[in-house]
Amino acid sequence: MQHPGAPSPEVFALLEREFGADLLTLPEALSACSRDDSGICHAPAAVLLARDEAQVSRLVALANAHRFAVIPRGAGTGLAGGCLAETGGVVLDLTAMNRILCIDADSVTATVEPGVLTGSLRRAAKAKGLFYPPDPASLDTSTIGGNAATNAGGPACVKYGTTRDYVLGLTAVLPTGDVIHAGTATRKGVVGYDLTRLLVGSEGTLGVITRLTLKLLPHPAHQQCVAAVFADLEAAMRTVIAVMTRGHLPSAMEFLDARCLRLVGDLLPEHVRGKLSGGQSALVLIECDGTKEETARAAAEVEAICRELGALALLPAPTEAAREEVWKVRRSVSSRIHEACAVYIPEDIAVPIGKIAELVAALPEVEKRFGVDIFAFGHAGDGNIHLNLTSPDEAARPRVEAAAEQCVRLALALGGTMSGEHGVGLAKRHLLPLEIEPMSLRVQRGIKALLDPNNILNPGKLFPDAPAAGGLAGAAKENA
Amino acid sequence: MQHPGAPSPEVFALLEREFGADLLTLPEALSACSRDDSGICHAPAAVLLARDEAQVSRLVALANAHRFAVIPRGAGTGLAGGCLAETGGVVLDLTAMNRILCIDADSVTATVEPGVLTGSLRRAAKAKGLFYPPDPASLDTSTIGGNAATNAGGPACVKYGTTRDYVLGLTAVLPTGDVIHAGTATRKGVVGYDLTRLLVGSEGTLGVITRLTLKLLPHPAHQQCVAAVFADLEAAMRTVIAVMTRGHLPSAMEFLDARCLRLVGDLLPEHVRGKLSGGQSALVLIECDGTKEETARAAAEVEAICRELGALALLPAPTEAAREEVWKVRRSVSSRIHEACAVYIPEDIAVPIGKIAELVAALPEVEKRFGVDIFAFGHAGDGNIHLNLTSPDEAARPRVEAAAEQCVRLALALGGTMSGEHGVGLAKRHLLPLEIEPMSLRVQRGIKALLDPNNILNPGKLFPDAPAAGGLAGAAKENA
Repeated sequence: MQHPGAPSPEVFALLEREFGADLLTLPEALSACSRDDSGICHAPAAVLLARDEAQVSRLVALANAHRFAVIPRGAGTGLAGGCLAETGGVVLDLTAMNRILCIDADSVTATVEPGVLTGSLRRAAKAKGLFYPPDPASLDTSTIGGNAATNAGGPACVKYGTTRDYVLGLTAVLPTGDVIHAGTATRKGVVGYDLTRLLVGSEGTLGVITRLTLKLLPHPAHQQCVAAVFADLEAAMRTVIAVMTRGHLPSAMEFLDARCLRLVGDLLPEHVRGKLSGGQSALVLIECDGTKEETARAAAEVEAICRELGALALLPAPTEAAREEVWKVRRSVSSRIHEACAVYIPEDIAVPIGKIAELVAALPEVEKRFGVDIFAFGHAGDGNIHLNLTSPDEAARPRVEAAAEQCVRLALALGGTMSGEHGVGLAKRHLLPLEIEPMSLRVQRGIKALLDPNNILNPGKLFPDAPAAGGLAGAAKENA
Repeated sequence: MQHPGAPSPEVFALLEREFGADLLTLPEALSACSRDDSGICHAPAAVLLARDEAQVSRLVALANAHRFAVIPRGAGTGLAGGCLAETGGVVLDLTAMNRILCIDADSVTATVEPGVLTGSLRRAAKAKGLFYPPDPASLDTSTIGGNAATNAGGPACVKYGTTRDYVLGLTAVLPTGDVIHAGTATRKGVVGYDLTRLLVGSEGTLGVITRLTLKLLPHPAHQQCVAAVFADLEAAMRTVIAVMTRGHLPSAMEFLDARCLRLVGDLLPEHVRGKLSGGQSALVLIECDGTKEETARAAAEVEAICRELGALALLPAPTEAAREEVWKVRRSVSSRIHEACAVYIPEDIAVPIGKIAELVAALPEVEKRFGVDIFAFGHAGDGNIHLNLTSPDEAARPRVEAAAEQCVRLALALGGTMSGEHGVGLAKRHLLPLEIEPMSLRVQRGIKALLDPNNILNPGKLFPDAPAAGGLAGAAKENA
C-alpha cells in the first residue's frame, strides 16, 4: 500500500474554496515549508496556515475523506525531516495559532496554542515567577506544539525532565478529523489510558495538537555554572557521576570532547588553553540553580569535586557575564562544526550515563574505518550525546552516513537508543528496526492504523515502510 | 459480549499440570487474593504465584487460547479493586518476582522485578547515595509493579512527579502471551510511540509488567518541615501558592481541613490546639529537601511566608524527632477516620491547585444534602485531595456513595479529575463517562481490543461495560 500524497485537482479546487486565502500555494510559501534543519527537502502541494482548531479539523477530515496527506508543521526547526511533505500533500502550518491563553499563577499551569514559541512561553511564565523548564537549543525559534510532537529535551532535562513531563493535558484533532481531549488540567491524573503521552512524541503521526495545558514550576532565582577541563573524557565522566551520587542535581551537565575543544579553543581563557596540549582533554560544564545562596554553595561543592577528581583547570563563572562566556563555548560548537565541514550529519544517540566514556572511546575506530571526523558533545547528565559526523569532502557523504549508522549500532550495543531528542522522522526510519523489535513495531503500527485507518496524517514518518493493506485488521490478526 | 471468567474444569486440570505447586488453590490462598484496600471482595478460581517471566507468559497465552481471565496482582494495597477477580479467573501474583537486579550508580538507574517493595527499592538506592522519589502511603507494603500499573503518587510528587516519570523502560507480557520491550535504559529516548507510558497506569489491562528500568536521582541529604495553622483553608491555600510563586519547590505540601484537625487535635502541641477554636482552621505541612544549609534556609523562608500570610500558629520542626511528630499528625488522619466511622469511602479527586479552596468550600453543602461527614486532606501542592466520605451508620452507605459521586461531579466542574492517584479499577468505572468523552473512550477501547482481542487480561476494569462483539474491528469502523 502506497502512502497518500497530494490532493487531486478536483480536491485541490475544493480546498481553495474551503480555505480561501489561508491556503497558500505561491512558490515562496511552498519553498518555505519544504525544509527543516535536517537538510532534507520536499515541497508540499499547498500550505494551510491554520487559524483555529475548526480549520485543522476540517482539513484533516477532508484528507481522510479524499485520501491526501496532511503534514503538521511548527517552526520547522526539527532535525529529522518529521514535518516535510515527502509525498506532496498539504502542510498544516500551525504557527499562526500562537496565543498564550492563560498563565494561571494560582494553579501553576499554562494553557497555550501549539504555535507559541517556547521562548515566549518561558518569558510569560517568568513574568509571573514561574518556570517552564524544557530548553531545546531552538527554544527561541521552535514552537511548543513541535516540542510536544517530538518530546523535545535540552540541557535542563537532566534535572527537570523532557517536554512530556510538562504536558498535563491536550486537545488534538485525530486523523479522522474528530477532536479529542486527553489528560487533565491537574498535576496528577490516573483516569484511563495515557493518551496524552501517546500523542506527545508521536511526531505528528497520530493527531494534530491544537491546545496544551502545561505544568509550570516555581522559577529558580539564580543559576551559577562551573566548567572544568580534564585530562580525558573518563575523568570528566567520573566527575559527572560523582556530582550526582553526592547529592547534587545540577540543572545542566554538558560536555565537549577533545576534538570539539580544539575547534572552540580560542574562546577559552589563556590558562585553560594551556592545559589542552594532551590531545584527549574534555570539558565539563555543570550548572546549578535555586536561591542565590544555594547555588553559590552548590557551585563551590561541585568545584571541589572537580578538583578532587583531577580537573586540570577550572573556569569558575561567578558573574552573569562570565557565565555567558562559558555557555558561549558550549553553544558555539554546533555552528563551528557546521561551518568547518562540507558534510555534516548530526546524530543524537543516548546511552546510560555510565557508558558515555566507553562510547566516546570507540569513536576513533569508527573515524579510521570510515575516514570521517566525529565531534562528540552534549548532555553528560542524561547520556544524550550529540555526535556530529563530518567530512571536508562532499563526495564522502555515503561514508559519513555509513559511519552514522555504525554509531547508532554502537549506542544500541551499550544499551542506548538511536535518538535522545531529535526523533525518527524521515532521517532515521530506515534504522528503526535496529532498535524496535518486531512485536513492538506491530503494536505501534496497530495503534497508527487504529487512529489513522487511511494513513493520511504525516504518512511515511517513523515507520520503515508503508503499512500492509488491511492495516489494523492485519495487525490485530498477527497479534492474535 | 461477556467478560471471560474462570477456566473450565478441563483447562483447570491443564493449569495444574503446567504449574504444579505454584498454582495455589487452597481456600486460604484464594481468600488472601480476594481483597485489596478498597473493601471490595471477589475470590479467584486459583492463584499463580509466578516465579519468572516465562511462567507469566505461559499463563497469559493459555488464558488467551482458552478464554479465561487473568488478573495481575502486586501486594493488593490498591484502593479501587483493580486486582480483584470479579468474574473468577486466575490471579497472577507477582510478589515472588521480587529481585532488585541492579542499582547502577554510574548510570543512576535501577533495574527491578515487579514484586520488589517500593520501600526496599528506596532503601537499596539510598545505600548508594541515590533516590527513588515516588512515595505512596503504602510504600513499605506495595510493590513497584503495582505502583507502575497504577501510576502511584504520594506527597513527594509535588516536587518529583509520579511513578510514570521514573519508568524509563519496561518488559511486559502482552495479553497474547508475547513479550514486549518498551522504552529505554537511558534517561532520554524519543524513538517510536511511548508504549512505556501506555502500559504505566493502565491498571494491568494491557500487559503484565515483568521488569522495570527506573530513573534514580541524587539522594537529598536533608529534609526539614514547617507546619502552620491558618484561620481557614483559603488562607492556607494562599500560602501554598505564595510559596510556589516565590521560587520554592518543596518536596511535600500537605493540608488537613478543620474536620481532620478536630480528629487529630490531641497530637498537636498545646499552643497550636488553642488556636483551633474558630472551627474553620486548616493545617499546612510544607517540607523542603536538599543540603542541610539549603533546607534550613528554605524552611526559614517558608516560615516567613506562613507568618506573612496570616498563620495563627507555627509548628517548626528543626529536629528529626520533631519532624516525625508533625508527619504523625498528617499520617494519623486516615486511620483515625477509618476507626471512627462505620462507612468510609476514600475518594481522591484532584483539581487545579487554585481551585482547592473552592472545592472544599462546597463540601458542607454536600454533607448537608446527603447527611454525611466529609474529611478533606491531602496533597495541596498538586491539588490531589483525599476526600474521606463517612457516616457512623452502616445503613447510610447508599447516601455516602451518592455523596461521593457528587464530589466527583464537583471536582470535574472545577476542571479536575475523579482520581489523582488511586485509579479507576472496579470502584469508579461506572463514573468514567462523567470524565472521559465518548471519542476518547472509543480510542481507549480500540487500544484495549488491539492488544487484548479476547479481553482476557484484567477484564472489567477501567471501562464502564464489556466491549461490544467485534472488538477492534468495530472500534476501527466507528472511528473511520
